[in-house]
Amino acid sequence: MSYDPNNIFAKILRGDLPCTKVFEDDHTLAFMDIMPQAKGHVLVLPKLASQSLLDAEPAMFSALFATVQKLARAVKTGMEADGIVVTQFNGAAAGQTVFHLHVHIIPRWDGVALRRHSGTMEDADVLKAHAAKIVAAL
Amino acid sequence: MSYDPNNIFAKILRGDLPCTKVFEDDHTLAFMDIMPQAKGHVLVLPKLASQSLLDAEPAMFSALFATVQKLARAVKTGMEADGIVVTQFNGAAAGQTVFHLHVHIIPRWDGVALRRHSGTMEDADVLKAHAAKIVAAL
Repeated sequence: MSYDPNNIFAKILRGDLPCTKVFEDDHTLAFMDIMPQAKGHVLVLPKLASQSLLDAEPAMFSALFATVQKLARAVKTGMEADGIVVTQFNGAAAGQTVFHLHVHIIPRWDGVALRRHSGTMEDADVLKAHAAKIVAAL
Repeated sequence: MSYDPNNIFAKILRGDLPCTKVFEDDHTLAFMDIMPQAKGHVLVLPKLASQSLLDAEPAMFSALFATVQKLARAVKTGMEADGIVVTQFNGAAAGQTVFHLHVHIIPRWDGVALRRHSGTMEDADVLKAHAAKIVAAL
């Protein structure tokens, strides 16, 4: 299987589909997951095309994970989280549903269980409100 | 809370505690998780001390994630996995139990559920056998 330039994250990166953006630089884009496993669930993508971490260009890891760190800190502060889970799925068997490399940043609070991945579509105004808290903490 | 130089991963990095090593370079060490969530569960650590991704030095992300990619590929091939989950926990509320930054590489197979984290201590010979498959695929 080769990279599909019409996957939904490629369309978001091209501006052909909307997203609730929280951060962008030359190499990365971060936006709210529309089916969050927790309030404040953010995705970070490299702009460079790859299906997963397995076929990614290592030269962009520095930029990608600098943004992951930046957002992990902002999500923790902005969402007043107790901890942050970072996950990244490679292949359908691992739970990957969109085949453009992406990193999940998921806040955790003591005693609060995670929702299932790809569960419920979140209301756009709720996503915007969470995005505003995260952007304020950047 | 500041970094505790006597956490068990710091002791492994110093050679004061053993591990079933699969890879090492100047900046990183990879070894078998002794309480694997799946057969072939590997941990990748930066040698540079930090508690988590949140307080890590971004200059080492390039080296750390180059090793994560290398091991993710080797675990997938060596363990004949269908997919690879990469996870990284920041804070006890996120499931972190050892406070030296580490990245989990967990193989997945279609239809095989993950075990619980920190469940059962795996037999050393089993870990060595899985390590040999992964090293052969490096």
